[in-house]
Amino acid sequence: MIGQEIIDRFKALLGPKGVITDPDDVAPWLTDWRGRFHGNAVAILQPISAEEVAATITLAGELGVPLVPQGGNTSMVGGATPPPDGSALILSLRRMNRIRALSADDNLAVCEAGVILATLHDAADAAERRFPLSVGAKGSATIGGLISTNAGGTQVLRHGTMRALVEGLEAVLPDGSVFHGLDALKKDNRGYDIKQLLIGAEGTLGIITAASLRLVPAIAARAVGWVGVRSPADALALLRLAEARLGDSVEAFEIIADDGLGHVLSHIPGARCPIETRTPWHVLIEVDHADLSDPGPAERLEQALAEALEDGLAMDAAIAANEAQAAAFWRIRESLSEAERAQGPALQYDISVPIARMPAFMIDAAAAAERSFPGTTASSFGHLGDGNVHFHVRAPKGTVDGPAWIAAEGQVINAFVHDAVVAAGGSISAEHGIGEMKRAELGRLASPARLHALRAIKAALDPQGLMNPGKLIPRPDEG
Amino acid sequence: MIGQEIIDRFKALLGPKGVITDPDDVAPWLTDWRGRFHGNAVAILQPISAEEVAATITLAGELGVPLVPQGGNTSMVGGATPPPDGSALILSLRRMNRIRALSADDNLAVCEAGVILATLHDAADAAERRFPLSVGAKGSATIGGLISTNAGGTQVLRHGTMRALVEGLEAVLPDGSVFHGLDALKKDNRGYDIKQLLIGAEGTLGIITAASLRLVPAIAARAVGWVGVRSPADALALLRLAEARLGDSVEAFEIIADDGLGHVLSHIPGARCPIETRTPWHVLIEVDHADLSDPGPAERLEQALAEALEDGLAMDAAIAANEAQAAAFWRIRESLSEAERAQGPALQYDISVPIARMPAFMIDAAAAAERSFPGTTASSFGHLGDGNVHFHVRAPKGTVDGPAWIAAEGQVINAFVHDAVVAAGGSISAEHGIGEMKRAELGRLASPARLHALRAIKAALDPQGLMNPGKLIPRPDEG
Repeated sequence: MIGQEIIDRFKALLGPKGVITDPDDVAPWLTDWRGRFHGNAVAILQPISAEEVAATITLAGELGVPLVPQGGNTSMVGGATPPPDGSALILSLRRMNRIRALSADDNLAVCEAGVILATLHDAADAAERRFPLSVGAKGSATIGGLISTNAGGTQVLRHGTMRALVEGLEAVLPDGSVFHGLDALKKDNRGYDIKQLLIGAEGTLGIITAASLRLVPAIAARAVGWVGVRSPADALALLRLAEARLGDSVEAFEIIADDGLGHVLSHIPGARCPIETRTPWHVLIEVDHADLSDPGPAERLEQALAEALEDGLAMDAAIAANEAQAAAFWRIRESLSEAERAQGPALQYDISVPIARMPAFMIDAAAAAERSFPGTTASSFGHLGDGNVHFHVRAPKGTVDGPAWIAAEGQVINAFVHDAVVAAGGSISAEHGIGEMKRAELGRLASPARLHALRAIKAALDPQGLMNPGKLIPRPDEG
Repeated sequence: MIGQEIIDRFKALLGPKGVITDPDDVAPWLTDWRGRFHGNAVAILQPISAEEVAATITLAGELGVPLVPQGGNTSMVGGATPPPDGSALILSLRRMNRIRALSADDNLAVCEAGVILATLHDAADAAERRFPLSVGAKGSATIGGLISTNAGGTQVLRHGTMRALVEGLEAVLPDGSVFHGLDALKKDNRGYDIKQLLIGAEGTLGIITAASLRLVPAIAARAVGWVGVRSPADALALLRLAEARLGDSVEAFEIIADDGLGHVLSHIPGARCPIETRTPWHVLIEVDHADLSDPGPAERLEQALAEALEDGLAMDAAIAANEAQAAAFWRIRESLSEAERAQGPALQYDISVPIARMPAFMIDAAAAAERSFPGTTASSFGHLGDGNVHFHVRAPKGTVDGPAWIAAEGQVINAFVHDAVVAAGGSISAEHGIGEMKRAELGRLASPARLHALRAIKAALDPQGLMNPGKLIPRPDEG
């Protein structure tokens, strides 16, 4: 545990508002939002500027105090929870919550790390622009955290992950130096791309304090369609057809198994199947136009879907007649996780494989899991267009004690699923990062070259190991 | 100089074809293609696989022999020239020239490092796809070199630099381990992005042996326009208008000063001004469609330009009536450097600043340079849409001995221009990289955070300093 003397040093540096020590105020930030990772810390540090962050990091270096950076604390992998022994302090960026600038002409917003995603959405909307990345936790997740985890979501197909939307960064490196890189330069070849290195580094190489983010034109018209298909392979063929006919205007392309739809229809009040027939698989597709020119997105989507029906790729299809219907289509997709939870305990995997291999993976890996773990049912849904699905293995019917089942079976099933992903050339973390949760599995499965590079870069930039300790980098005994 | 014993070790490893020692065969590769950097090496190593590259690097590490990687030897900054003292060997990737796979369905080509850019262009065309990056040296430049320098060109506006087109990499790290990252994953959050770190690293962190590259749909229809404008500010306003009306279909947007056009008309046989009036500045714009739907690119460009003429943004405009005229418009742009050279000696800078600041920079920096160096004339042209221009300072009229003028004035003018770029929040290398040429200036101008990060990462991954020594990383005495 960190003593009062150390806390007083940080209080002298950041002022009374800059250091939270009341246990009631600290407590909510010691556990991740899903309640899976629990830590301890005697204080939360809350600097309000890049300079204060730099001073905080410099002092922490002097005192040898590890820092755990936090934005909205919405990590899915225990990436922002302090270690249980209380040896670290939390470094919250939540007070750095200004949008420093927003230019519609330049399609650019300069946000501090603590700006909440929904706040940026609103500010962009007000300027008749759009920030095209969204996640379920948009009301809490902060820009700094979203960049540090290279967040994804359902709009990645067209606009990319956070990595593609960050045009500049301001960050404090572990030695206390400030990296001033907010100027948005489309071409800049001054050596290693420090910005790209910090994106997705989960706070282990320094603290992002602000970012220049790319905005895109507001949506002038959208069409949302629901398509019943025979198989993931047909869904992929439909995606190729949509890309050929509709080009860049395909904003989202999500695949849903019929059993997943069934769970939504059973558990979510008011949900109904958008098409008349129940087909083995379903696709949700959104087409967006930034202008009102003819033909509009609904007409173009209709044409493409007519072709798909004629070719036999689509078994049935519907296009939302209005915004309320479009929202209802999306609500099904967004309720899948909740409906699955209501169905019983499950192990959930956030994985990616090369898109061409995804249809076979979805079928084969599910069948293999069910064979290997009798009684379980496995299925997947998600961002087919990104080669990224959420793969779930549900406990045998009648399992009452979910945690006990996970404690008994979790590690073996994890290894089974991750091995299948690696065999398919994929990634054991598509969207959520590594954090604490997947650290050991990364160590077990990463190639020697990747492990060597991760550890060498970490040791070079953070030789004291004070930045988000225990996260991302496998320990020496972990591979 | 490296002795015979060492050469024999590499011959034993790579076979007789794998090591070139005939001085006549080695000589062409000791000097950069513009004849500005001269080096020495007793041999060129030519492995044919990632495994042979790994074995080569491992042996070089054992023997302490530095390696200078080379593709087409078309560096603009002395990035591929061996050191003059003959202490290093050249590692050529030219024999690794297979396109391992090309899938039109997946929009993906897997190329070895030594594939020549024009060869990839042809292969993509044959599959009715396009690799949307091109440079003047496309007949010599190789994929490995283009990735290692994060090459740009005139199509960056829409499709990005090489960084945006690489979906996967295979590379050998300085410790001899092979990074197997060719699987194209749109979402992959397994820690630091090693791929992005190697892109633009100029061979100082390892050797790229192959890459998965993104292809885009072939162009079905294009329109090329020439627009006379009053100023760079009006050119930028025209770009914003074009983006609003034509969206992602704007493929190129190049700005040319009227004096540059004048040089082309004087020196390039057959060149003529595409518009009737001579205006202070000119814009070349290309709009591409991947399909043949109505309205086509010419009709849409015409509409946008009519609006610009009405608004007074454009003074005059022409749209190429056919492919021959479109090619003639482009030939003017592509002849600018040659025409400038015919005009007399000049210092040339490849720089970027944030796009919104570019119009003022083009005017103010040119005026300041002319004031500070009486007799010189300064102007710029290039990729306005990317915030990247080629800024030239021409020797006073009548200067006969160009090299003497450059020897006398070069360093001071370099510093003057680079200081102006840094003051505008820009980069002293937009497209060409740092190499040997800009290493000292990077040391002088980079922030402490950037320098620290560059040096720490280099030392961590290449502790012996054997990978492309003397390039990119400023020496201890250089800032």
